[in-house]
Amino acid sequence: MMGQSYRQEFSLESVKLSDSFWKNYQQLVREVVIPYQYQVLDDAIEVDVQAERVDDTLPVGKSHALENFRIAAGRTTGEHFGWSFQDSDVYKWLEAVGYSLQNQPDEALEALCDEVIELIGAAQAKDGYLDTYFQLKCPELSYRMLYFSHELYCAGHLIEAAIAYDQATGKSALLTIAKKFVKNIQAAFGYEAGKIQGADGHQEIELALVRLYEYTQQEEYLHLAEFFTDVRGKDPHFYSNEVKRNLEEGLSEENPTIDAAYLQANAQPKNQTIAQGHAVRMLYMATGMAKIANQTGDAGLLAACERIWQDVTKRKMYITAGVGSTVHGEAFTGAYDLPNDTMYCETCASIALVYFAYELFKNEPKREYIEVLERALYNGVLSGASIDGKHFFYVNPLEVQPDSCRNNPGKGHVKTTRPDWFGCACCPPNFARLISSLQKYVYTQQEETLYLNLFVESQLTSETGTLTQQTDFPYENQLTIEATGMTGRLAIRKPSWAAVMTVASVNAETEIEETADYFFVQLEKAVTLQVSFEQPVLAIRSNPKVWTNSRKLAIQRGPFVYCGEGHDNPELFSYRLTTKDISEAKVRSHSELLPQTLQLDLVASKVVQWKDEELYRFTETEEVKEAAILKLIPYHLWGNRGENELRVWFPEG
Amino acid sequence: MMGQSYRQEFSLESVKLSDSFWKNYQQLVREVVIPYQYQVLDDAIEVDVQAERVDDTLPVGKSHALENFRIAAGRTTGEHFGWSFQDSDVYKWLEAVGYSLQNQPDEALEALCDEVIELIGAAQAKDGYLDTYFQLKCPELSYRMLYFSHELYCAGHLIEAAIAYDQATGKSALLTIAKKFVKNIQAAFGYEAGKIQGADGHQEIELALVRLYEYTQQEEYLHLAEFFTDVRGKDPHFYSNEVKRNLEEGLSEENPTIDAAYLQANAQPKNQTIAQGHAVRMLYMATGMAKIANQTGDAGLLAACERIWQDVTKRKMYITAGVGSTVHGEAFTGAYDLPNDTMYCETCASIALVYFAYELFKNEPKREYIEVLERALYNGVLSGASIDGKHFFYVNPLEVQPDSCRNNPGKGHVKTTRPDWFGCACCPPNFARLISSLQKYVYTQQEETLYLNLFVESQLTSETGTLTQQTDFPYENQLTIEATGMTGRLAIRKPSWAAVMTVASVNAETEIEETADYFFVQLEKAVTLQVSFEQPVLAIRSNPKVWTNSRKLAIQRGPFVYCGEGHDNPELFSYRLTTKDISEAKVRSHSELLPQTLQLDLVASKVVQWKDEELYRFTETEEVKEAAILKLIPYHLWGNRGENELRVWFPEG
Repeated sequence: MMGQSYRQEFSLESVKLSDSFWKNYQQLVREVVIPYQYQVLDDAIEVDVQAERVDDTLPVGKSHALENFRIAAGRTTGEHFGWSFQDSDVYKWLEAVGYSLQNQPDEALEALCDEVIELIGAAQAKDGYLDTYFQLKCPELSYRMLYFSHELYCAGHLIEAAIAYDQATGKSALLTIAKKFVKNIQAAFGYEAGKIQGADGHQEIELALVRLYEYTQQEEYLHLAEFFTDVRGKDPHFYSNEVKRNLEEGLSEENPTIDAAYLQANAQPKNQTIAQGHAVRMLYMATGMAKIANQTGDAGLLAACERIWQDVTKRKMYITAGVGSTVHGEAFTGAYDLPNDTMYCETCASIALVYFAYELFKNEPKREYIEVLERALYNGVLSGASIDGKHFFYVNPLEVQPDSCRNNPGKGHVKTTRPDWFGCACCPPNFARLISSLQKYVYTQQEETLYLNLFVESQLTSETGTLTQQTDFPYENQLTIEATGMTGRLAIRKPSWAAVMTVASVNAETEIEETADYFFVQLEKAVTLQVSFEQPVLAIRSNPKVWTNSRKLAIQRGPFVYCGEGHDNPELFSYRLTTKDISEAKVRSHSELLPQTLQLDLVASKVVQWKDEELYRFTETEEVKEAAILKLIPYHLWGNRGENELRVWFPEG
Repeated sequence: MMGQSYRQEFSLESVKLSDSFWKNYQQLVREVVIPYQYQVLDDAIEVDVQAERVDDTLPVGKSHALENFRIAAGRTTGEHFGWSFQDSDVYKWLEAVGYSLQNQPDEALEALCDEVIELIGAAQAKDGYLDTYFQLKCPELSYRMLYFSHELYCAGHLIEAAIAYDQATGKSALLTIAKKFVKNIQAAFGYEAGKIQGADGHQEIELALVRLYEYTQQEEYLHLAEFFTDVRGKDPHFYSNEVKRNLEEGLSEENPTIDAAYLQANAQPKNQTIAQGHAVRMLYMATGMAKIANQTGDAGLLAACERIWQDVTKRKMYITAGVGSTVHGEAFTGAYDLPNDTMYCETCASIALVYFAYELFKNEPKREYIEVLERALYNGVLSGASIDGKHFFYVNPLEVQPDSCRNNPGKGHVKTTRPDWFGCACCPPNFARLISSLQKYVYTQQEETLYLNLFVESQLTSETGTLTQQTDFPYENQLTIEATGMTGRLAIRKPSWAAVMTVASVNAETEIEETADYFFVQLEKAVTLQVSFEQPVLAIRSNPKVWTNSRKLAIQRGPFVYCGEGHDNPELFSYRLTTKDISEAKVRSHSELLPQTLQLDLVASKVVQWKDEELYRFTETEEVKEAAILKLIPYHLWGNRGENELRVWFPEG
């Protein structure tokens, strides 16, 4: 069987970005984020490592991730520190470096990675097992507390890092380590008698194994991914039985109540009907399911993916493509339950939504997948990092009143500025690896059709020719597309935020077909296309079932959701606006934040005539208001100028 | 020193209610609530005893409160079950019975109480100590873990019950038990060397001791109240030192992190500036402070009370007079942080607000105290019980979507219907004792002025004469007041919800003075007054600083805040209304719920043209709406017709 995705997904090297937005982010990751994160993982700089939520029992203060490997390798002494998945921070960092090296070689960085990889190899047990937490703290519990262990989650990230690094450097040392670990896993897990018939509490290895299959074409990896995706939830008591057995055998005193739905183990993945439980687990699982379906054509898995997709995007997704409405279990909640100030919207969950959307698009090229992918990229993902590249959000709120975050423990997880690092540091390196591999989402080949998903100045080199996008998007409203030596047809997405979009061929004979979602252009001969569109300032309403957004409007221009900050708008709580205010917004350049950032100035209104000591008022009239300028910035840039208020959904009126 | 409050507060016997609203509630308490609660406390009926919030470690399933006394008395064997303050459920029930017997004697009930009191006496230790939790579980920790123990809290409720029962029956057995316990407390606590220089983590004994002083005129009780009110927070580490000492001495393995502000022990009460920490503790403490000030004239304490009052009522109080914005610590949060769907608004906290408001009013008869007292009584307090008298809310939300409560753990404490009982059952008997003593709030004597606080058909018998209110309020808009043999002047409150209020003397020569807040009428000679007013349907807005109520309106008529339920209004989320819709509301009788209940029918509008699968929409227009009748009922009656949606604040538009 052919690894289909290699017909669909282009390698990072075949797409060169030259735009001023994403390429700058890739540069930030290369020049700042990657070196900074290494120093943090190495405990080489003083940083304030915070808990991701209010819980005194969470590990904080340092990363210790590399030190854990050194101890496991016997090169120093000490105790393991941090989560059972602390190793994955290093793996995700290595994966980000792998992509970055594919974009731009860097000998010193590569040498540093080689050292890290050598260290990882030295820490690996002779039998291939590798998880410094269990190796150092409780080897007797290896593979015996999968409800919590993240051992296979870490293995998944190791696999992904190994592929990226092998692709970048041709050096297979990390891949060898990963395969050796997989062999250990294969020996321990499976439907054969005596093997463990369960999967990791935190999905990740499933999608990683399919990637390993795609990369190596060795079917055993695909089969193992299928096993983990089939066995999950087959015995809904698997995880609680683990707890019981460990207690009975005196191996552990831990006696947690297992919520099978939190682990998506209440049913087999193919039978899941809604998005529930831990958001990142859910979406990593769904990504793995879609990847398997993409390879095997498993219609049952794909149908389950589609049910999950519909539930996420039609009932449980914020306008920023943030997902996970509650800190409790970092989880999905009920349909239309989208509180703006107590939500979780973990950066990793929006990243996972990008992965999931893209895999579904590879299965069937429907515009809605890319619409959500783009929404996540430009909003819920990017908000995860500061523009200085050294501060990160785990939780991405849509409404912040710093005083409430301080005084209401139900909002205690909502940070008002980005911390240096987290005790649970999944998000920062996840951000780095996504940004470094961003170009893979720009174009997709589907049979004879080349999909242009994202407007990004870039050059695609295919087997037969080249296609370039010239544009200063998102800062201008046109693209020039030149295709030479390409075959089949080009599909140019019509983003739902774009108005009056046209595609014209400069060499006029080219056939252009327009549908509701795409322009299709024949590519048989060299073609130059002029794509024009408008990026009007758009008002957004929620389904009235979203109680928290009743009579509120959000604002979007192009792919960016906009927000207001107290920094620019004192008394942010008092602003009211109308769809007309929004449509007449002035687009202006912003002097702080990123170069070229566009600010929106709205002539809105502010409620006046209230005194602090007047909490409620009987009234017979409309609110008393006066005209006031509301200044909005792209949502992902909020929180870069110190602590202040934030609002995405504004009261209408 | 004279017990001033006995000049101000009228005894229950001197005020006879004859109205159809509160008297019916008193009848419900007498005929249903009191017998039902006894059966629950005696574990004599099958009830579903729920946790007050989502926490698997909380005691549930039964009350066991009377059984704990039986075990402590040596009359049966077994283990203590429930909270360290389980005894107080019995005391509060006895207090409610005491008031009820003052309203209407009942020999059988009195005989039952005598048995209970005899049991309590038998459970009391020889040295006067009485707390079945500590007596049965860990006597070595008596008075040594005040951060948690509630021993003096229980003593306070014992004192209050003893006074009520002595007043009702002339039987002093319970008062003797209480005084004996106080003697034990006096021996253990005080500034003298060797005594404990700290107060109970949960305030209550302070206000109870002042009541005991008022009742007995023995100054030692007032002094002990002053001691507890002075010593609190003097050493902000008192409670954490308790923890440390118990650990060091091996008495307890408990090592909680003490949040002094949660216990209002971060500063002395006289130096408190805001409402913070556990809401009921805060307001019981403030009530005690106001009671002491009322007796001693302590200006410092009174000024602190006024600061707390301002902070509560101008920045942290719901329109229902619910308080406590978070389940975490059942506590106050920051200013203007008033989420409608995750709040706590414990029934006990609104009851405590009634107590606090009344004590402040006795210190200085400002209308605003009674305005809040009335708001709490008719809304946040009454919502605590079902109309069948056998179901109770602990948490009183202003917005409920049952599906969110089930699926969002951040709303897990919000019950959608009233449970039978709670593992922590503070609210149900607190409700009973307040309702049974309701008439004490109707009239207050301040020097030569008799304040008519509440419109309730009733007869007041003073030392010299009588005053009657004839009215079917809240169901009609007039009172006839007849006064005979009274002296001084009468002050009739002008409720802020009343329009066009007039007071006319039927014997026309009486002098009537009108101020912004009151009508003052001379009472030298017999007088008959006709009081007329209107109860228009009023729209309410919040200070725009309350983010959660942006562009929302609440509705009030007379003292009742109104709400919409899904039961009457399918798709409750889709209603929009204007101040005009509200002012034109039709007042209609309601066929279910309480007799005479008035429903409001508004011609509002509903948002239409949304499909379930459309979560967000770009828009250039106003919401598409169609006219729709919105039916509203008094807030306190919500949740009596099965599970459904609730909304108090409606989107405006």
